[in-house]
Amino acid sequence: MEDDLSTLPAYIKDSRLLFETWLSRLVAIPTVSSDPAHDPDITKGVASAVRLLETFGLSTTVVETGGNPIVVGTLLQDPAYSTILVYNHMDVQPASGEWGTDPFILTRRGNDYIGRGATDDKGPALTVLFAIKYARSRRIPLNFKVVWEFEEEIGSPHFDEFVKTHRKELAAESVVVSDTVWLSDDKPVLSIGLRGLLTFELYLQTGVTDVHSGMAGGPTRNPIAELAQIICECYDAKSGHVHISGFYDGVRPVSSDELQTLRTSGFSVQKFMQDLQLFSLRSQEPIEVQQSIMLRPTFEVHSIAGGYTGTGIKTVIPSSATAKLSVRLVPDQRPTETFQKIKRFIQNRNPDITVRRQNSCEPYLAKLDGPYLKAAEIATHYAFAAQPALVREGGSIGSVMSMSAHLQVPILLLGISLPKHGYHAPNEHFDWQQAAGGIKLFAKYFSEIAKIS
Amino acid sequence: MEDDLSTLPAYIKDSRLLFETWLSRLVAIPTVSSDPAHDPDITKGVASAVRLLETFGLSTTVVETGGNPIVVGTLLQDPAYSTILVYNHMDVQPASGEWGTDPFILTRRGNDYIGRGATDDKGPALTVLFAIKYARSRRIPLNFKVVWEFEEEIGSPHFDEFVKTHRKELAAESVVVSDTVWLSDDKPVLSIGLRGLLTFELYLQTGVTDVHSGMAGGPTRNPIAELAQIICECYDAKSGHVHISGFYDGVRPVSSDELQTLRTSGFSVQKFMQDLQLFSLRSQEPIEVQQSIMLRPTFEVHSIAGGYTGTGIKTVIPSSATAKLSVRLVPDQRPTETFQKIKRFIQNRNPDITVRRQNSCEPYLAKLDGPYLKAAEIATHYAFAAQPALVREGGSIGSVMSMSAHLQVPILLLGISLPKHGYHAPNEHFDWQQAAGGIKLFAKYFSEIAKIS
Repeated sequence: MEDDLSTLPAYIKDSRLLFETWLSRLVAIPTVSSDPAHDPDITKGVASAVRLLETFGLSTTVVETGGNPIVVGTLLQDPAYSTILVYNHMDVQPASGEWGTDPFILTRRGNDYIGRGATDDKGPALTVLFAIKYARSRRIPLNFKVVWEFEEEIGSPHFDEFVKTHRKELAAESVVVSDTVWLSDDKPVLSIGLRGLLTFELYLQTGVTDVHSGMAGGPTRNPIAELAQIICECYDAKSGHVHISGFYDGVRPVSSDELQTLRTSGFSVQKFMQDLQLFSLRSQEPIEVQQSIMLRPTFEVHSIAGGYTGTGIKTVIPSSATAKLSVRLVPDQRPTETFQKIKRFIQNRNPDITVRRQNSCEPYLAKLDGPYLKAAEIATHYAFAAQPALVREGGSIGSVMSMSAHLQVPILLLGISLPKHGYHAPNEHFDWQQAAGGIKLFAKYFSEIAKIS
Repeated sequence: MEDDLSTLPAYIKDSRLLFETWLSRLVAIPTVSSDPAHDPDITKGVASAVRLLETFGLSTTVVETGGNPIVVGTLLQDPAYSTILVYNHMDVQPASGEWGTDPFILTRRGNDYIGRGATDDKGPALTVLFAIKYARSRRIPLNFKVVWEFEEEIGSPHFDEFVKTHRKELAAESVVVSDTVWLSDDKPVLSIGLRGLLTFELYLQTGVTDVHSGMAGGPTRNPIAELAQIICECYDAKSGHVHISGFYDGVRPVSSDELQTLRTSGFSVQKFMQDLQLFSLRSQEPIEVQQSIMLRPTFEVHSIAGGYTGTGIKTVIPSSATAKLSVRLVPDQRPTETFQKIKRFIQNRNPDITVRRQNSCEPYLAKLDGPYLKAAEIATHYAFAAQPALVREGGSIGSVMSMSAHLQVPILLLGISLPKHGYHAPNEHFDWQQAAGGIKLFAKYFSEIAKIS
């Protein structure tokens, strides 16, 4: 059977206005999953997702969980066809930092679409959906199950239970996830691994109220300083090296194949710094930079709060301080064991510090099936005239680990976001080139895997 | 000449309602000097101070400076009388932290007056003023000059220039400052020294915008972690010991007299912790605790800001971070030299960090004249039936150093605040016992020094 995708270019061209309309609607709902104040927006986001999927011809189910609901869309064309499960998430990061535009009003600038969630992950979700619509119109022999999560940005705390419970309804021959980032603007990636994530808080209280540093400074403990000190004992901020005993246990040795892929990936340190607008890095060696993103764990402090942060200096010693931290984990590190090591290390040194575990997800390494990998390569060539690099991703997608465990089918991580799009950063954006290329990519991919018997 | 203070107890009793009325008015104006948003309140505070002084029979002048104005009140009874200059400040700390009441509405609870500035320094200022009013009514042979500053809490940046320029108008035989704290509830203090203060900021920017810790974590520098690290290199949070080379240069050896005074001061570590509501201290030795407050310098971090501090954890690496720090200095350390040492130490280790000097004031050690000291002791006995401890104060009052340098007369630091009053802390309060005792103290002190020829 020969593909007939001849109508695809015109379909993409004609779709732009509708794409922009829906992306605007989706971005306008601040589905920030980490802040309970946005719970009503999650409810609005779910309703909007249902409308969108039904408009595109899918039947929908809203599955309640212990947290935010999950929206499932189904397009059953023929029970004889094989089925693909498409995963995206519809929740977003908070829009802190300095934005040039309102983060929740999609702003079009040339081909760019600026707004929180534009590239992570509302834009890619919409892109796949436009490809599904095309596949339907062309009767590509495939059934579709679309899963849109609303808790990805907080580590998918209820997704595992969801997949486990609904294993049968979610059954498919393969899964595709579009929530990853290319190596550079012209280097697509087929991600074969993800880092895991463990987030946790440190809390130290040394008194009931803030005290005057003149009256009490000297004998009085300073909780900000003590948290800073324990963090410095945990790791070296300059190199990123972690001092916690046993932290690196389980880290898989890097294979020479992986190193070779990185060496030939076309990765440029200069370009990476430009895309992310960074002034300097811990290392300038391309192979070092790539490895430390993809193949090595990290230790990161995201905030140390406590004391006065208004204008000027208030010379009090705060009564308490909180630090927010995370570690990214690589195969075969485990979040639970890692948390125990961190907690033990900290409390041995400063027993007054409370160490609270927050979210976590396991690291992931794909066992890729031949035909799906082949289909992805063909589709990437077709859409972007490039060979995808098979590399591990630095980020974490908790849901992938759950789907891998419970569905036991190949999971393809076909991302269409670019480094410059600014995942989680202010001025996050998506663009029409990647959307158009993405529709082409997924349409071709669907057409290819429909042939797998 | 024998004193006739027989009407004083009745005067104090009759003054309570008026005292409370004026304290309410003063506290109701949030004269927060560290925040430019409160500039209009400073203006209101100045107008209110003028009204208050004139109501009490003083003529007033508002002296403009490069910053907030200074209010000067004069009560010239007879050119033949000697003159005392009374210093207080009318600005306050920001009211951050958790208050049980509105910090800018004076709340009376039994004998306590709760509100920002109640004890630092509006209550003591008012207390001295009631004693001046009494002195006037009893024709105690003394002229009064009252100086109310509105920039004490930000290190008195324009006060030195003010005193220098107005040296002649401010001429007096002695100065009294009421802005210090007793050793304990029943141990009055005649402060013979003050720590100096130097506040500064560290700033580190490593990129333009926050970046995703999955996409970029590993090679990307973390400015919060780097600031935490340099702070840990500067000093040991657990002991408070400072590692900066030369930091302790100039610290005067403690005399055996001073140690003896501390040993017999009745200071209780337990009571200190209770008053300040602290759970534990760096040391439990009374002599260690007292020395580290009064006789030794400190290094303190007040905040490390940067990154997301909202609900939940946002796993981004911030593009910049700011830390606010201070050191308290003791004789004969100097702020300028100390700042240079700190800056050099930090920039040698991390040249990307900007070190910005903020405010400073010199440490102070009194050379007390016999008769004034004697008068203060007599007045303290009269008012509180106790012998004042001659100790150095842990806090810093920049204006004292300026008056000492330019006026060249004895400066008596006669504080009436108690440790439990909570200088700079939430739920700051003053109380009627200390106000009543304070009026008695100052009335007697005025009567005593009027006798000095």
